Amino acid sequence: MLEKVDLTKKISKEEYKEKMPQLESKLGRLQRECKALGIPVLIVFEGFGAAGKGLQIGHLIQSMDPRGFEVHPVKNETEEERMHPFMWRFWTKTPARGRIAIFDGSWYRKVLIDRFEKRTKAKDLPAAFHSINSFEQQLADDGNLIIKLFLDIDKKEQKKRFDKLAKNKETAWRVSQGDRERNAHYDEYAALMEDMLFNTDTDYAPWTIVESMDRRFATLKIYTTVIKAMADQIEKVQQQNIAKAVEKADKAEAEGVVRKKETNGDEIEEIAREADAQMKDLQVSILSKADLSLSYTREEYKEKLDKLQKKMDKLHGELYRRRIPVVLGFEGWDAGGKGGAIKRLTAKMDARGYVVNPTASPNDIEKAHHYLWRFWRAMPKDGHVAIFDRTWYGRVMVERIEGFCTTEEWKRAYKEINDMEKDLYNAGAIVIKFWMHIDKDEQERRFKERQENPEKQWKITDEDWRNREKWDQYEDAVNEMLMRTSTDYAPWVVVEGNSKYYARVKVLQTVVDAIEKRLKEE
Amino acid sequence: MLEKVDLTKKISKEEYKEKMPQLESKLGRLQRECKALGIPVLIVFEGFGAAGKGLQIGHLIQSMDPRGFEVHPVKNETEEERMHPFMWRFWTKTPARGRIAIFDGSWYRKVLIDRFEKRTKAKDLPAAFHSINSFEQQLADDGNLIIKLFLDIDKKEQKKRFDKLAKNKETAWRVSQGDRERNAHYDEYAALMEDMLFNTDTDYAPWTIVESMDRRFATLKIYTTVIKAMADQIEKVQQQNIAKAVEKADKAEAEGVVRKKETNGDEIEEIAREADAQMKDLQVSILSKADLSLSYTREEYKEKLDKLQKKMDKLHGELYRRRIPVVLGFEGWDAGGKGGAIKRLTAKMDARGYVVNPTASPNDIEKAHHYLWRFWRAMPKDGHVAIFDRTWYGRVMVERIEGFCTTEEWKRAYKEINDMEKDLYNAGAIVIKFWMHIDKDEQERRFKERQENPEKQWKITDEDWRNREKWDQYEDAVNEMLMRTSTDYAPWVVVEGNSKYYARVKVLQTVVDAIEKRLKEE
Repeated sequence: MLEKVDLTKKISKEEYKEKMPQLESKLGRLQRECKALGIPVLIVFEGFGAAGKGLQIGHLIQSMDPRGFEVHPVKNETEEERMHPFMWRFWTKTPARGRIAIFDGSWYRKVLIDRFEKRTKAKDLPAAFHSINSFEQQLADDGNLIIKLFLDIDKKEQKKRFDKLAKNKETAWRVSQGDRERNAHYDEYAALMEDMLFNTDTDYAPWTIVESMDRRFATLKIYTTVIKAMADQIEKVQQQNIAKAVEKADKAEAEGVVRKKETNGDEIEEIAREADAQMKDLQVSILSKADLSLSYTREEYKEKLDKLQKKMDKLHGELYRRRIPVVLGFEGWDAGGKGGAIKRLTAKMDARGYVVNPTASPNDIEKAHHYLWRFWRAMPKDGHVAIFDRTWYGRVMVERIEGFCTTEEWKRAYKEINDMEKDLYNAGAIVIKFWMHIDKDEQERRFKERQENPEKQWKITDEDWRNREKWDQYEDAVNEMLMRTSTDYAPWVVVEGNSKYYARVKVLQTVVDAIEKRLKEE
Repeated sequence: MLEKVDLTKKISKEEYKEKMPQLESKLGRLQRECKALGIPVLIVFEGFGAAGKGLQIGHLIQSMDPRGFEVHPVKNETEEERMHPFMWRFWTKTPARGRIAIFDGSWYRKVLIDRFEKRTKAKDLPAAFHSINSFEQQLADDGNLIIKLFLDIDKKEQKKRFDKLAKNKETAWRVSQGDRERNAHYDEYAALMEDMLFNTDTDYAPWTIVESMDRRFATLKIYTTVIKAMADQIEKVQQQNIAKAVEKADKAEAEGVVRKKETNGDEIEEIAREADAQMKDLQVSILSKADLSLSYTREEYKEKLDKLQKKMDKLHGELYRRRIPVVLGFEGWDAGGKGGAIKRLTAKMDARGYVVNPTASPNDIEKAHHYLWRFWRAMPKDGHVAIFDRTWYGRVMVERIEGFCTTEEWKRAYKEINDMEKDLYNAGAIVIKFWMHIDKDEQERRFKERQENPEKQWKITDEDWRNREKWDQYEDAVNEMLMRTSTDYAPWVVVEGNSKYYARVKVLQTVVDAIEKRLKEE
């Protein structure tokens, strides 16, 4: 999740000053509503040292009624804590219904600092993750709202902040030997964090990455995240209360709850909607990092393509001999160049050794099964290559946006998909997913070209134009998808596609590199 | 789960003949209803070789419309299957909505036969279990009903059945070398099964143990289990349909669904209720195995008690020096002798090293937290002993029976509790749970004695008499609890308590043995 984060994000002083007062009053409003509904809230601050956890907690609580929350700094264990099971200190600090518990550091210590300093052994990690997930799931099942914020800064910025703190006599004590150590081994520590994020990013307690190089940006994002999560939870609880009343067949109560929801509900709904809109400017944007000016001349393209295709042909034979399966997923904007890239990729491959699976809307039989069923059926045999032109990621893009599945369904799909790809990987497969990326202008150009060219007219439909109108919604969904499902064992590769030449070469090069790497490892 | 199963259960020919026709017609009825509601059903048959899986599947499908189900025999992988990820063959066989898939053997191969024959390595087990649970959870989340039946027979019976098959020329081929191997190492194989049951007994796909020494008993139990599970699922889906209609604020639709449920619903509810009642006679009964005639004379008691108490005092000091925490939970029938046993256990222990926590109804602050919160708070420091007079198991007994929590809540509590006890164990604790068992007559005798003795009158209330009326309900809940939460790391010990002398000595002896065993291991 971290490697794809864009840390250059900033908010101007003016924007900050304009937006904050509203957010502050909303947070106060939502805290009161959570109290009234008896929703317990846990807010977890994790992230790199000197990323500003303390400062941000200070900002956040300013808008809250101090009688309703507690801040728990999580430092080294006390004598008392060390003599209890690890989770004891956190279980005993879970908030009562209607109250908020803010954790400055948390139970993630065990799989971060403690792991880095070898106090948590590798063999104990599965149990530690199980214990953490069980804790969070139990609380979520019991109605707790769990908001997990990960404050991200880069190595250089961290060092700068440590140096600044160290220079000043009054703040020097805040920089420990351990901090320096972790800064020196920043990449190693970041890898542990990545592993932690992957193992604990769940639908019931998802992580939000907070880009914290710019403090104003971080504050705004934290406020918006907390507001959005609270408003959503309030709506959910109201819905549950209605359902409960219905279940008890208590009409009067049901109507009472509905009435109450209609009175307050509109306001909460409005807050949720606004937070949603605001989040779009703040969320992790992976696509915006892509450099769409990258291109090749026709000559460069011809030369590279020729070389790579020949290599691919050879490697394909080698894959077959060694019985290694390959799964390649292609997603991207309409007219992003999926078809063209697949064509160049397979041009010199032996047709008996690969299959291209075009993914259309599910047919009746497919609809009568779990959404992953049809993709499982198409997974390749050992030694074969399966290429998917559109994939199982439809669940978290088109199905999400068009409302073909429920919010719960697409939210839990990230984990379901990660689990499926892990199964493939564990069975020996090479798994790569491509996002064919172009900008909106380029898409328009290509659409028009298709319309004007009689031979390409079949490729463009009214639906394509309709989808184009939802570009922003798709962009948000894609960014979230890339972040939550790009893993070591099944990475996403964003392909800069404004230049078709560049894109096709990059796809081929990526596949060739991945196969060569695997062959070397065997 | 297996060690506590009573394999002596039998059903007479008459009873069988009387009950089966009704069950058969109900199953047909429910199959049609599942089809109408689009509920996919998976029925998994696992268990010991020669336990009668094939035969029982034959019985079961006789009552089903053959156009609505498929039986999948799961043998060694085919060439095609071996060249795919392990779960591929099962994903591709998941049933369409409204259909039934019956598995003779299943994905559990990987953690049973394959593990026994070392094709699954120890290091790959966590991933295998993760993969299995993820598969089942995904299907359950998608509306699939998963019924898992484990057919249990003992070593001797298995050998007898193998021998009989082997003698007959026409059936000899059915006994493989592997079967003989697994019979020879029955205990070792049973331990793998136990581990499998523990890791995959979930609220969304629970196991049912089918005592299969007597084939009629097994058939009856399988039918009843399947009927109960289907009827429950149908009711759940109907409820969800109402909730969905309400959520869409579609009054007409909601009323339509309610009407439909009222028409059919009564019948389904009736079937569910009957199956529930029938299940009581068929379910695993651990309590009935206890030999309540066990007793000691006063002299034997005095002598043993004295010796054990002295030992306990010594061991207590040793625990403190070695910083080993101990958690002892006491549950049992009212007047079952919990207090007396705890008193004798702690008689010679240093009062600074143990705490007895009496568990009453939760107070307001406790109610405002997760039900495990108050118990977590009371967990002992290293080197200390925490004794609980009544425990967290209230969730699956009194809360279940009195309706203080929802069905979903107590069903998922087994896993939550197992997870908590595992955390304690991983932190080095010795964890033992005692069920103080007496029979109904003995309870009545003790109640009356209390009423007649002015010094003991405070111990008996109207509530005790009211609880006594629910004896059967409690017995069912206790049996299920003992089966689902007795683990290697935190075993349940049923204490035969009609003789108070015997019970007190057994508790002391158990604790002493467990501590000595641990001290030896360190």
